[in-house]
Amino acid sequence: MAVTRRTSRDIRSESRLDVLHALLAAGEASRGDLAAVTGLSNATVATVVSDLLEGGIVTEARRTGGRIGRPTTTLRLNGNRGRIVGVDVAETYVRATVFDSALDELASAEIATDEHHDEHDYVADAIARALDDALEQSAVEGAPATRDDVLGVGISLPGGMQRRSEVAVVVPNAPWLHVDLLRERIGLPMVVDNPLKAIATAELWFGAGRRHKSMITVNLGTGVGAGIVLEGTILRGAQNGAGEWGHSLLALDGRKCRCGRLGCVEAYVGAAGIQQTLAAIAPEHPLAAVPMQREFIGALAAALEPPAHPALTETLELTARYLGSAIADLCAIVNPEMITLTGWTAWALGDHLVPAVRRRVLEEAPGHSASDLAIEVSTVRGNSVATGIATIALERFLGDVGLVTTRVPTAI
Amino acid sequence: MAVTRRTSRDIRSESRLDVLHALLAAGEASRGDLAAVTGLSNATVATVVSDLLEGGIVTEARRTGGRIGRPTTTLRLNGNRGRIVGVDVAETYVRATVFDSALDELASAEIATDEHHDEHDYVADAIARALDDALEQSAVEGAPATRDDVLGVGISLPGGMQRRSEVAVVVPNAPWLHVDLLRERIGLPMVVDNPLKAIATAELWFGAGRRHKSMITVNLGTGVGAGIVLEGTILRGAQNGAGEWGHSLLALDGRKCRCGRLGCVEAYVGAAGIQQTLAAIAPEHPLAAVPMQREFIGALAAALEPPAHPALTETLELTARYLGSAIADLCAIVNPEMITLTGWTAWALGDHLVPAVRRRVLEEAPGHSASDLAIEVSTVRGNSVATGIATIALERFLGDVGLVTTRVPTAI
Repeated sequence: MAVTRRTSRDIRSESRLDVLHALLAAGEASRGDLAAVTGLSNATVATVVSDLLEGGIVTEARRTGGRIGRPTTTLRLNGNRGRIVGVDVAETYVRATVFDSALDELASAEIATDEHHDEHDYVADAIARALDDALEQSAVEGAPATRDDVLGVGISLPGGMQRRSEVAVVVPNAPWLHVDLLRERIGLPMVVDNPLKAIATAELWFGAGRRHKSMITVNLGTGVGAGIVLEGTILRGAQNGAGEWGHSLLALDGRKCRCGRLGCVEAYVGAAGIQQTLAAIAPEHPLAAVPMQREFIGALAAALEPPAHPALTETLELTARYLGSAIADLCAIVNPEMITLTGWTAWALGDHLVPAVRRRVLEEAPGHSASDLAIEVSTVRGNSVATGIATIALERFLGDVGLVTTRVPTAI
Repeated sequence: MAVTRRTSRDIRSESRLDVLHALLAAGEASRGDLAAVTGLSNATVATVVSDLLEGGIVTEARRTGGRIGRPTTTLRLNGNRGRIVGVDVAETYVRATVFDSALDELASAEIATDEHHDEHDYVADAIARALDDALEQSAVEGAPATRDDVLGVGISLPGGMQRRSEVAVVVPNAPWLHVDLLRERIGLPMVVDNPLKAIATAELWFGAGRRHKSMITVNLGTGVGAGIVLEGTILRGAQNGAGEWGHSLLALDGRKCRCGRLGCVEAYVGAAGIQQTLAAIAPEHPLAAVPMQREFIGALAAALEPPAHPALTETLELTARYLGSAIADLCAIVNPEMITLTGWTAWALGDHLVPAVRRRVLEEAPGHSASDLAIEVSTVRGNSVATGIATIALERFLGDVGLVTTRVPTAI
């Protein structure tokens, strides 16, 4: 496909997104504040705010009368414009989270899907049930939230790494086979994307993304991946497959990854990989036999408080070495300004890992590519997949009402 | 640094670059042709052409009178606007190539720098001598080319990978220590960048770059690297260090790379790495002892014609496997639409390597990220570093005269 041509409409769209991001960060702000924060001119801010007020996306919060001059009106996002739902379809659960239109979380509901996660009817059913449950729970002051209130539903579907299985991949050119069925079942404006794009969006709207020319969010959990944000835009790639760094090589002919390839980064720094590292060092250690990955990571974090068993310390050191080497490869190829670590493994082990990871990255990254690199645990907590995919749904809604142009379209 | 804001000036700049690229590809074209090729409106093309005519960048080629309607004027780049010089500072030579302002090559001169390539005075001297020699040879019809004719000099300096040596790196935040000395010595408008950015620019202006949303040019020679082009823009990264894929991991704790790291891609698919692969398979094979890398690669390519020695066939198969795995990592992280192979190793071995590399990439790249990927030997031949760095110098000149805005600035 040819390079996308930019238009003055894109520039207006970017100004609107800048103002929305600034309002989201500030909570409440005057037009003058918005001009100062975004660097846009007062005239542009006035036009943008007028468009957003007209669209019901922004509302006037209050009017403050100063002692001198005109009273100032502050603005905030309009939470009453409707509801946005983010659905995180993970390997063992489906969780739907309802947000108001200012992206404040109202309620959520989870359905366990332990065994049937590759049966599409079953997953579609779980998504619909979680959505209805969460909407019901988001009723405000006795008034039930109806489906009419929903501006958009974002659904994060895993995929893109099940190369050799029959589970289809969520990419523009080869959509999940049952997305149409899902769309019919949900019956609401719907957008589908993958978790890496969702966490990158969350980082872009709520975290470090907007402040840097380039930022990578590294997700550490059962799966491992990277959300790459360049110049405020998520790098999607030709098949929405960019960021699958978890399935890039750490070691040629190394450990077998669950994707089928040998030696992937995920096979070393995914939760199961960390447990495998421990099992290789001390097969008899009780933590090596903990059956659930999340429980294992939690127990490891707790057991790392001094005095820690030498096998656990060594596991952590090796994990930091693997992760540092793999992040150095991101520096070599993308050379970002900042890397944030997210996901439950990062939240549990981040404080233990980050200093050693930083040292390793500095040793291994080529040239000066890591000399000014910030590596930090993400400030976006909670279910950043649900938050991110809901934000993508909000972006889609803003596109549908003509306020935002999407140069790089969402997946489906 | 914050995200760069786009302006309507950037859009005009992009339209001008689109028209210049179209003229470069076509040689000669009418305004109507340019509108058809670029997708710009007739009105925009008229304005852009008027700006470029006024700046002396474009000239009217001829006026053709059709039988019906007005005569049509065709346009071409104005080669008489001045000279552009591209200097490729390689490990064993400095080559200066003089182009006219339509980027047609006029002359070149090479200075061998075998032994002193890390003495900066010596290199600066070689650059100045090569530049003067090449200018002298570019005299047209007896009239000598003077330094006054030179619109700009682009100098490609290696660097970015000598992490543990004293050879400084050419990056915006840590400039080559003697760039000021070099600037003084040259005494002409000068731009410095690294070879990866130069070959990516050559691919963008003369090769596949403009036709794809995302493209990676993989350079194979003594050094190995990748020029990454996204949406028509070269990915530079925070310290101009993006694309140093040659120094990303192929094998944890693998072969020692000349950069100091263990297991880099370059240690396997650089010319010396390929020779090391052969030496491991058949230490007694005469090609394993060829002293010069370029000679080794040429001899290997010749000896691969059937019937080839099994050790050479195996060397090629292993190299394709290494290269395919490493390119699969680029698919995992960046997921480009197209990959071109360039550099003397690619030109010599490309036909032998490409089919096996394609197979390996399809096997190893995650999801569908390689299913539509084109992998081809670049159509840009000759010294693409010199061509690319001269093009960067021309872009800088266009910026200086106010015709182009550079959102992502050149290195120095």
